[in-house]
Amino acid sequence: MMSIENKNPGKDISDDDLRYKFPLAAKQSPDHKSSFEIAGIEFGKNLIPIFAGPNMVESRELILEVAANVKKSGAHFLRGGAFKPLTFPYRSERYTETREKGIEWLFEAKDKYGIPIITEVMEEKYIPLIAEYSDILQIGSRNMQNFPFLTACARTGKPIMLKRHYGSSLRDWLGAAEYILVEGNKNLILCERGVGSPHTHRSTSRFLMDLQVIPAAQEITHLPIVIDPSHATFWRPWVSPMALAGIAAGADGVMIEVHPTPENASVDPLQPVDYSEFANIMNKMNHVAQAIGRRIR
Amino acid sequence: MMSIENKNPGKDISDDDLRYKFPLAAKQSPDHKSSFEIAGIEFGKNLIPIFAGPNMVESRELILEVAANVKKSGAHFLRGGAFKPLTFPYRSERYTETREKGIEWLFEAKDKYGIPIITEVMEEKYIPLIAEYSDILQIGSRNMQNFPFLTACARTGKPIMLKRHYGSSLRDWLGAAEYILVEGNKNLILCERGVGSPHTHRSTSRFLMDLQVIPAAQEITHLPIVIDPSHATFWRPWVSPMALAGIAAGADGVMIEVHPTPENASVDPLQPVDYSEFANIMNKMNHVAQAIGRRIR
Amino acid sequence: MMSIENKNPGKDISDDDLRYKFPLAAKQSPDHKSSFEIAGIEFGKNLIPIFAGPNMVESRELILEVAANVKKSGAHFLRGGAFKPLTFPYRSERYTETREKGIEWLFEAKDKYGIPIITEVMEEKYIPLIAEYSDILQIGSRNMQNFPFLTACARTGKPIMLKRHYGSSLRDWLGAAEYILVEGNKNLILCERGVGSPHTHRSTSRFLMDLQVIPAAQEITHLPIVIDPSHATFWRPWVSPMALAGIAAGADGVMIEVHPTPENASVDPLQPVDYSEFANIMNKMNHVAQAIGRRIR
Amino acid sequence: MMSIENKNPGKDISDDDLRYKFPLAAKQSPDHKSSFEIAGIEFGKNLIPIFAGPNMVESRELILEVAANVKKSGAHFLRGGAFKPLTFPYRSERYTETREKGIEWLFEAKDKYGIPIITEVMEEKYIPLIAEYSDILQIGSRNMQNFPFLTACARTGKPIMLKRHYGSSLRDWLGAAEYILVEGNKNLILCERGVGSPHTHRSTSRFLMDLQVIPAAQEITHLPIVIDPSHATFWRPWVSPMALAGIAAGADGVMIEVHPTPENASVDPLQPVDYSEFANIMNKMNHVAQAIGRRIR
Repeated sequence: MMSIENKNPGKDISDDDLRYKFPLAAKQSPDHKSSFEIAGIEFGKNLIPIFAGPNMVESRELILEVAANVKKSGAHFLRGGAFKPLTFPYRSERYTETREKGIEWLFEAKDKYGIPIITEVMEEKYIPLIAEYSDILQIGSRNMQNFPFLTACARTGKPIMLKRHYGSSLRDWLGAAEYILVEGNKNLILCERGVGSPHTHRSTSRFLMDLQVIPAAQEITHLPIVIDPSHATFWRPWVSPMALAGIAAGADGVMIEVHPTPENASVDPLQPVDYSEFANIMNKMNHVAQAIGRRIR
Repeated sequence: MMSIENKNPGKDISDDDLRYKFPLAAKQSPDHKSSFEIAGIEFGKNLIPIFAGPNMVESRELILEVAANVKKSGAHFLRGGAFKPLTFPYRSERYTETREKGIEWLFEAKDKYGIPIITEVMEEKYIPLIAEYSDILQIGSRNMQNFPFLTACARTGKPIMLKRHYGSSLRDWLGAAEYILVEGNKNLILCERGVGSPHTHRSTSRFLMDLQVIPAAQEITHLPIVIDPSHATFWRPWVSPMALAGIAAGADGVMIEVHPTPENASVDPLQPVDYSEFANIMNKMNHVAQAIGRRIR
Repeated sequence: MMSIENKNPGKDISDDDLRYKFPLAAKQSPDHKSSFEIAGIEFGKNLIPIFAGPNMVESRELILEVAANVKKSGAHFLRGGAFKPLTFPYRSERYTETREKGIEWLFEAKDKYGIPIITEVMEEKYIPLIAEYSDILQIGSRNMQNFPFLTACARTGKPIMLKRHYGSSLRDWLGAAEYILVEGNKNLILCERGVGSPHTHRSTSRFLMDLQVIPAAQEITHLPIVIDPSHATFWRPWVSPMALAGIAAGADGVMIEVHPTPENASVDPLQPVDYSEFANIMNKMNHVAQAIGRRIR
Repeated sequence: MMSIENKNPGKDISDDDLRYKFPLAAKQSPDHKSSFEIAGIEFGKNLIPIFAGPNMVESRELILEVAANVKKSGAHFLRGGAFKPLTFPYRSERYTETREKGIEWLFEAKDKYGIPIITEVMEEKYIPLIAEYSDILQIGSRNMQNFPFLTACARTGKPIMLKRHYGSSLRDWLGAAEYILVEGNKNLILCERGVGSPHTHRSTSRFLMDLQVIPAAQEITHLPIVIDPSHATFWRPWVSPMALAGIAAGADGVMIEVHPTPENASVDPLQPVDYSEFANIMNKMNHVAQAIGRRIR
């Protein structure tokens, strides 16, 4: 009779992991949950903050217009990429990466409409610039285990949103979170944005949104967890049902891509919703949040 | 420069699939949705029917007691396995497969408490027996593509719930549904119960609940889709959040495993909830259903 | 500090599984390996038997011609489907399921060219017919956990090839094997034919061939394991490299789809190889087999 | 009838991808294959270079001893990590990251035994140091899409081995390769080291080795592809069969972890083989290589 060890160092989370591998990310008691304010918005309590905006800060006009609109619908944060990781080193003509200018326009929108901002940091050299202007530093999924980068972002002291890599286990994700927490930076938000699976249900969709990770994460970590149904589904009509599902499952925030004319978005035109659909989703999210004793307003 | 065809016969669903492969399962218009009554309970409309009960009909006492309790909490159908597909050909002493007797006890519970029943058919030879007593024939995931069996079940004319295999694409699942519809049996319900994934988040859990399949299915088929968070998560604490998430995503029914003393369940003791937790989940589901304009009562 | 059990009842194989769940499929010592003869061909020893032929027994002429050709190239078994499980209940005009006639033609080919045959049994009612004519009963992946069917096939006493479901764990597969072994039928062969994965590398391919399962299976079971690179890859140019890889990894047999004009095959025309490519692959497999101390001739 | 587009921008590779997204990585003709020399060792021709050594350069003694031994068995490159990405920010006492010293010791081993070296670069600030000493810069899977880092490594002009992320598609991997090629750095090697899957077959193994990617990659790219069965399988007994399988499938190199006393390895003690097993594997790989018209000596 052959013997097979049943230790699980790779795939699952053990008591030793909770104690020694991510003691700062792990809950200290069943009710332990982080809460903190970013730009006056409360995380980890009853409010479910909403992040909305275009994938890319395509132009000053665009971002100002979107800021006005999503603010009006009740979004708490304006999102938008000024820098963008692209799978290939070439940019099409339609593609717009507005870089330093984009950061300025985001800040102008914040200033003008009173809506705090979140944008992705892609490279160590831009950390100071983005830390100066953005309320939250977003770390993209491809950098989830870029450990020196995690440390550098953490050391700014700015709030951080850490997106899960689409191939990452919960264990690896919490390990990455621990790299940030160990620097003394406690304003950390996790963000689920889909995992690889044969079951994406459309040839144009690359990921399966993993909502099971919400109760799974909340069972062991006190960190707030946000969902990004736009990137997870890659398909406009599924954004609303998956946003609602995430709230019902216990998500602590929702990020939604919004564009005035989605089919003209410079990247990923299948996923953003327009202003009117965003307003609809806000209403629906509000109802579902209230149904579980939370709120988005 | 090498050429690569981009046809997708296997993984995704094409217009030709909708037209020629599952014309009966496919929607005929954007608003097309099946609705029908089973034992006076409406499917495919505002009501979200709830199926509750133990994994196994362990004894007459158990099933009568559970029937009384889940009925009181508002469940529409009593579920319970009298026959059980087991991964291995051996049965432990604790294991109870009550077979024909179990079917009788289910029927007794139905009769006594006025709650219609659903139970799995595992073998062609038991179809007549189960079709006589059960309001719905449940076809388990392992039989999803047992085509002669699908045909035989369909020909009873009884309502059918077709569980998705944990490795099955939406396309394969709708293909199996078409085998039932083509026999003229229109009272067909789909049931999602988790898919294989590296991301199950617990060593004791085998599946990832796929909620993305709800909007994906509803985009192309008119068939109602039920979710089974108990089997999908295999973990009691996640049943409630995933049930709520499924309702928010648009599920047309929820199946929940209930046992008076879950840790004593004869199979899968990590997944059932007790009466009190079931009553809690019913309340929460009711609130979420109302938030999206539906109801469970 | 939350506690998480680290038992693994679902995904991996424990010592208890080996002892109590599949004691007959489990090795009794590190060198334990089944060997037996089917139609005078040795399994589980140095020889690596090759199964070749068309997906479907499209016509008498086709199967006789293919039999003559694959026999000449050194194949040990002629394969061909007379009955075919189809994902959808409709048959295109090109589709040919020759059923009872196909079984007769296979037997005629066996008789004329002295090559034993293997064909899939799809339905209990055809077991007696196929058991009469075929040297091996092939159980398809969709029936892998159709337990009553496994038992019925096992009771014929005929050799059986059990294909792995594309969503099945090794544990579930060996559980299905145990259902056959427990009936006293020891001439059992496992067959790997690809698993679901986001990494199939072509839109036309549905599966990833899992070669890691070969050493994994051989570590715990004494049963011979055959590979089917044609169904696993679904793509003609990959059949040869994956067949060679499987032999190098320790496969105990290889099944290859062969058609005189692959692009005209009535089903799955992207996967069969023609006679000349089959003869090439036979030569290459022979060299690789010899390199690891085995042989295909 | 609903309409579903069948474009595939995310999961599979189109002709447009080959032309516009990775024109430098794409083959220009069916026989197009890159070949180049690194430290006098030929890549992309008949030779299949072997990389061997410990996971970590634990000490000067260890790396010198391993260098002598793997050189004697015929390895072409000495591998060893001086810097190590760890999933968690804490180091156990047993853990040894020898950093700058480790790089020096590797170089000493190279000098003393005449075996060129490969080691992982983890951080931009160490690129100059490692580029000075190491014959090949290894980019780890977690940095596969750290685009600024890819560019910085490419600009050193040193040969690069780009490991595939365990969640990455072939398309994303070739996109990352293109970032290196576009800098004019042509000495680029791909390395497969396992993908996420529910089918890893052991609770201690995290990945499924993807051998199908070898013919899939070679169909569209001219870049050599190396396999790392040690990291892919995470399990010593499977290293040999998977190494042989990779060679048979067409791999252009093999990386194997070797440690004098594997169970004492400071990280991942389940995966290295000892000197004697490495010598065995070298012999077997030699036979299989010859069987397909290639060689490792």
